[in-house]
Amino acid sequence: MKLNCDLGESFGAWSMPVESAIMAEIDQANIACGFHAGDPLVMKQAILSAKQHDVVIGAHPAYPDLQGFGRRSMAIAADELSAMIQYQVSALSGMAKICGAKVSYVKPHGALYNDMMKDTAVMRTVMQSIAEINTQHSDSPLALMVQATSHNAALKDAAQEWGLPLYFEAFSDRRYTDEGLLQSRLLEGAVLSESDALLQAKQLISSGTVTTASGATLAIEADSLCVHGDTKGAVSIAKKIRTFL
Amino acid sequence: MKLNCDLGESFGAWSMPVESAIMAEIDQANIACGFHAGDPLVMKQAILSAKQHDVVIGAHPAYPDLQGFGRRSMAIAADELSAMIQYQVSALSGMAKICGAKVSYVKPHGALYNDMMKDTAVMRTVMQSIAEINTQHSDSPLALMVQATSHNAALKDAAQEWGLPLYFEAFSDRRYTDEGLLQSRLLEGAVLSESDALLQAKQLISSGTVTTASGATLAIEADSLCVHGDTKGAVSIAKKIRTFL
Amino acid sequence: MKLNCDLGESFGAWSMPVESAIMAEIDQANIACGFHAGDPLVMKQAILSAKQHDVVIGAHPAYPDLQGFGRRSMAIAADELSAMIQYQVSALSGMAKICGAKVSYVKPHGALYNDMMKDTAVMRTVMQSIAEINTQHSDSPLALMVQATSHNAALKDAAQEWGLPLYFEAFSDRRYTDEGLLQSRLLEGAVLSESDALLQAKQLISSGTVTTASGATLAIEADSLCVHGDTKGAVSIAKKIRTFL
Amino acid sequence: MKLNCDLGESFGAWSMPVESAIMAEIDQANIACGFHAGDPLVMKQAILSAKQHDVVIGAHPAYPDLQGFGRRSMAIAADELSAMIQYQVSALSGMAKICGAKVSYVKPHGALYNDMMKDTAVMRTVMQSIAEINTQHSDSPLALMVQATSHNAALKDAAQEWGLPLYFEAFSDRRYTDEGLLQSRLLEGAVLSESDALLQAKQLISSGTVTTASGATLAIEADSLCVHGDTKGAVSIAKKIRTFL
Repeated sequence: MKLNCDLGESFGAWSMPVESAIMAEIDQANIACGFHAGDPLVMKQAILSAKQHDVVIGAHPAYPDLQGFGRRSMAIAADELSAMIQYQVSALSGMAKICGAKVSYVKPHGALYNDMMKDTAVMRTVMQSIAEINTQHSDSPLALMVQATSHNAALKDAAQEWGLPLYFEAFSDRRYTDEGLLQSRLLEGAVLSESDALLQAKQLISSGTVTTASGATLAIEADSLCVHGDTKGAVSIAKKIRTFL
Repeated sequence: MKLNCDLGESFGAWSMPVESAIMAEIDQANIACGFHAGDPLVMKQAILSAKQHDVVIGAHPAYPDLQGFGRRSMAIAADELSAMIQYQVSALSGMAKICGAKVSYVKPHGALYNDMMKDTAVMRTVMQSIAEINTQHSDSPLALMVQATSHNAALKDAAQEWGLPLYFEAFSDRRYTDEGLLQSRLLEGAVLSESDALLQAKQLISSGTVTTASGATLAIEADSLCVHGDTKGAVSIAKKIRTFL
Repeated sequence: MKLNCDLGESFGAWSMPVESAIMAEIDQANIACGFHAGDPLVMKQAILSAKQHDVVIGAHPAYPDLQGFGRRSMAIAADELSAMIQYQVSALSGMAKICGAKVSYVKPHGALYNDMMKDTAVMRTVMQSIAEINTQHSDSPLALMVQATSHNAALKDAAQEWGLPLYFEAFSDRRYTDEGLLQSRLLEGAVLSESDALLQAKQLISSGTVTTASGATLAIEADSLCVHGDTKGAVSIAKKIRTFL
Repeated sequence: MKLNCDLGESFGAWSMPVESAIMAEIDQANIACGFHAGDPLVMKQAILSAKQHDVVIGAHPAYPDLQGFGRRSMAIAADELSAMIQYQVSALSGMAKICGAKVSYVKPHGALYNDMMKDTAVMRTVMQSIAEINTQHSDSPLALMVQATSHNAALKDAAQEWGLPLYFEAFSDRRYTDEGLLQSRLLEGAVLSESDALLQAKQLISSGTVTTASGATLAIEADSLCVHGDTKGAVSIAKKIRTFL
């Protein structure tokens, strides 16, 4: 099990906290590509920091919405969305190459991530966009990071058609439903306390299951745990989760 | 002598005219990279059109200023400007690769082009940015397109330090000063009529000289002539210039 | 019956065609406020042109999406959307005042308009936002322009709660469904030919009805007809419609 | 002597620190208007906070440059710059009115402020832009806040031509040159330590002078002291300066 974190999410004069400190605790950095956060210099610094800490780099493309930090769903035509994803991945990949590093996977950000998990048409666009990139980079194809649910098999089938490796990620600090989805943040208890999050991380790592909101035990097969870098105590939480690994 | 033209300068619902028709008449397309024009889909379409017409692709990076179309000089720190250039070139290069094409050179746009020609610090930042890219793409290094003046030698020396190939471009439709610079557009006669532009193109192609505002004959050593795609009659002008080649 | 048209939709170096010519043919100009189109100078010029032609000015606020021209639905929280609407209306109103003109109504643009007509929560946010402005401008309250449907009464009731005057607009060049909505553009025949559009305009003006896609006659009570300024022949169409008035 | 502070400089998911706490210590809030910082909701919240603390509101317009936080000089034509200033001031004024508050003055931000103090053409554009607003708001004209130098008289003369009230502001935490300008931040000692800043504030308040970099005593006639809200300890510094007043 790996730890991943969204990084490079500062923009110009505005900083997102924690960034540098968390890099030492994670395995995979999802680096913003300029559409929801991350100006070119911020991206370059994040790449160099990931390289220094031997952290695997993922591209973190988003809807074009700085003001909404990519968290607002946007209705974008498939060909435009595809071009946006390829633009962002290309920009980060090229800059990584300049820094002597490389991009290994793609994790869509925010509302694009949620839309992709809910809407098979968006998922298809995301997969196809990355598959098109991979046909040109046959030596080390980019993987796609998606949310681990109790229905991983369907996504695996879809990805196989595109020849696309998948990483499944789980969330330690969010309550799962019996369907293996995340509870809406609007519900009380949807975001776990630090101690509950640590318990859930332990359970995911040791037994590949979560205890859902109803108390049921559900298998969640995941390759990576998402750590939120902008949470208070993120570095300390990440350190504790590492001890379970 | 080649013909080059700025392309891919539409944005969302807004079109720049001529685009598709001129592609058949030119050798080199300077494709916008999203900072002054060119959303990702527009860029992809421009790349595909260039590929179809066997036109060499150049990246056309700019200051981050959609509203000003990259025509306003901006005071940007060297490390930020460098990251901006590398971001834009990387984005276009990656998208070109996806389309089975490639980027061969970089021509800075608008105010960045003018600043680079006037300010050696900006030129150094531009050259270094591209040289850093080239160290990672040693098989086919990107060239830099600059303005041909009567002082090409100084730029050649600077570029050689960075191992950077240069393309020198001349303008058929602008009056030159005795110093080999372009007359300010504010001066009467600075922009040539179509017939005068054709005469100047012919002279540049056949004898490598221009007749300056004072009537003097000045050597301007150029590899490429810039055609303005948004001028009325641009396609017809390009066709006529081709007959001189 | 009035004629209204979306105007001020250029941005920086990019022009939307027709603009100046159509101003002489319309009664109401919906002027973009900078979020989907219309930089400050474009807005000022549109205001001055409207004033010169004695055209009533409406604010045309949109989702913050230049690249998508405000045509992409965005999921925006009510308090943010409200602030965005008030920001845009305030900007245009203040600039109109500087030019010795004034804003008389608000017509949301593109996806915001569509969302408002489909989603009562969005409609409530729009109405409340304008009502809050009106409590401070009690002398001449802003009206809201909405789409005339066969259910105008429900909107009138809602608007009355907010003390909000309504303008209902109809479309001459779009085919109506039996429910009084516009047919999806994806359907064949949804956009009328010029001659059919003129017939529909005549029918709307003379009898307050449209002939729907199924051939039924439906009452559509409208105060204003929308003319599309970016259509080929828009000025000539507007001139012909005027002859019916 | 008043205390003023730049506020409302968060944007979307990004916060500028201190904001709320400093409001209790200042007299005048320069509220960002969306071009360098401040989305519409942030602006509204800043207006409401200023109103609650009985703080006078100033508009803080800037160059259109979110990524550069308005700190990069941009070469913008006078008519465009004027429209940009009027757009921003109008947006904030309208939103203040909706909140039952009002804008009393304009303080240009960052590079626009610096350019205005260095370049009389920019100062003229700024003055004219505000004067045009004032001709429509004759009851309570907006003032312009400028930097107090040893040459206040020249600015007073210029402002009088436009019928424009001026506020002069001084800086407690920056070293002055013998010419009454601020030392470049690039020079050692240009930014004062907290204790030196408090001494300079005391001297400015009690005797209307500063001790320059060369040790000379220079008269600086100021109406307001600028407090930087994003400095560490800004609230505590403001509290201490208040004890001198």
